[in-house]
Amino acid sequence: MNIPEISHLQQAHNRIMPLIHRTPVMTSRYLNSLLGCELFFKCENFQKVGAFKFRGAANALLSLTQEELRNGVATHSSGNHAQALALAAKLLGTKATIIMPRNSPAVKKNAVAGYGADIILCEPTLESREQTLRQFVDKTGAAFIHPYDNFNIICGQGTAAIELIEEVGSLDAVVAPVGGGGLLSGTSIATKSLLRNAKVFGAEPAGADDAARSLRSGVRVESNVPNTIADGLRTTLSPLTFSILKQNVQDIITIDDQAIISAMKLIWERMKIIVEPSSATALAAVAAEREQFAGCRVGIILSGGNVDLDNLPW
Amino acid sequence: MNIPEISHLQQAHNRIMPLIHRTPVMTSRYLNSLLGCELFFKCENFQKVGAFKFRGAANALLSLTQEELRNGVATHSSGNHAQALALAAKLLGTKATIIMPRNSPAVKKNAVAGYGADIILCEPTLESREQTLRQFVDKTGAAFIHPYDNFNIICGQGTAAIELIEEVGSLDAVVAPVGGGGLLSGTSIATKSLLRNAKVFGAEPAGADDAARSLRSGVRVESNVPNTIADGLRTTLSPLTFSILKQNVQDIITIDDQAIISAMKLIWERMKIIVEPSSATALAAVAAEREQFAGCRVGIILSGGNVDLDNLPW
Repeated sequence: MNIPEISHLQQAHNRIMPLIHRTPVMTSRYLNSLLGCELFFKCENFQKVGAFKFRGAANALLSLTQEELRNGVATHSSGNHAQALALAAKLLGTKATIIMPRNSPAVKKNAVAGYGADIILCEPTLESREQTLRQFVDKTGAAFIHPYDNFNIICGQGTAAIELIEEVGSLDAVVAPVGGGGLLSGTSIATKSLLRNAKVFGAEPAGADDAARSLRSGVRVESNVPNTIADGLRTTLSPLTFSILKQNVQDIITIDDQAIISAMKLIWERMKIIVEPSSATALAAVAAEREQFAGCRVGIILSGGNVDLDNLPW
Repeated sequence: MNIPEISHLQQAHNRIMPLIHRTPVMTSRYLNSLLGCELFFKCENFQKVGAFKFRGAANALLSLTQEELRNGVATHSSGNHAQALALAAKLLGTKATIIMPRNSPAVKKNAVAGYGADIILCEPTLESREQTLRQFVDKTGAAFIHPYDNFNIICGQGTAAIELIEEVGSLDAVVAPVGGGGLLSGTSIATKSLLRNAKVFGAEPAGADDAARSLRSGVRVESNVPNTIADGLRTTLSPLTFSILKQNVQDIITIDDQAIISAMKLIWERMKIIVEPSSATALAAVAAEREQFAGCRVGIILSGGNVDLDNLPW
């Protein structure tokens, strides 16, 4: 298994720099005093397409040859990765095709179509999704860009932590949400390489706790019946992300949905920024394990800000 | 009538610098392309207490003598000015007393009390409010800090535009919301002094259009029965703000509540930041008069971000 090193992340960063936003790092004295630690929020909700996913997608596409790019790219996703791949493809002059379940919300289909991607609908099952994708790739030669079980995706996602550390310097801990593990893998490689003593934590919804169970048992949990509001975190670790997280991550902190929603509302009210539930999971983790982080300098990756404003969880 | 000049604003800026946040200027390619102009958003929603009002309050208090400060400060307001005065007083080691109508929402009373201010409740009439304030000031010698009919308040509010212009350089126009006119007065003094050719526009809810009517007729409209969601903009111009705006302002653009709400939602969705309806009024004004701003570099003061997340207007 080919594991990314910090030099791969740094090359990725140079590669995607012209395409991405360098997002700001925000702080809140109120939250610092509430939680008794010093928090540095890396605001990927301000990234293009509203999520860190654009970093990985841009890096994956920029790592293809011109010939590969010509055949287009494809993925299965109805979330931020789909939009990210669609926009990256558009900016690089190629075509993205997104396999989405027939029952995806119209707003998600529209967002992807708005970036000029083609959509192929499949049945809402894992089998249908994988079969539809395989058929499409076989027919067209498009490059399949997995949302997280992909070396270049992980390198791209890790560039947010590189920027965070460049900007704020030393940290005692970095906390990122974990779904499929792409963001946390990249974050952990950057953090462990650039900061000798920093610990890396994953924040995971209790209703989709496969990463916590996998790391605890040492055996990757391959399936999951997710039940959480954090829709970006319903996926399960892949072989690649599992092996990275096993090496690098101190602990996975699980949080129930009520605490995730409270943390989300706290960020909206106090920081005046819009984050999605997945993002809030990281702050909820710090709040849940307050003693562990007391007095520490803690980096938090706010992963994205795509929410349905007509359907808020409070 | 003593009208502030740019040197007074610059002195105010130096004075308050240690207390305020230097708020970021944000841009959005999506909004630029939607509206056909280049927009620069000065994000006072990220200011302390969540609104530009802290600038004026800090300057007003820092302009008092030590002896005056010892007697405390007082105002009538149930909005952002009340919180701003409360926090500024707390930071400077004195006492703020806020006269609020008996029927103010609990959330507003709690916010003011949370900054350590005393609250005196009055009847929800102009007479009761002014009488209660006068009695309190006569009894205690506290300095009355009017929310906008005050030289030092206007100087403080103008510092947001100074920072905006320092950061982005030349602008063709600056748009700020107008309620009592403190922010727009300060903004207009800064803009007309620092940028020779820039035009200054006020953005006002159609349901509280006293400033538009006053400037059109040349006679200050002294009363108003406001009916708008933009709760920060329900007040009427004062003699001081009217005389400044008459000099400096190109036009007041009025917008109905539906357009204000649309602009607010657009900012939330696309910029991922939380702004209150009053803030969104300025973007709504640019959208309403698109031809006038076509191709221009336009500064927009996002005045604040204090909204009740349990009671959104969509």
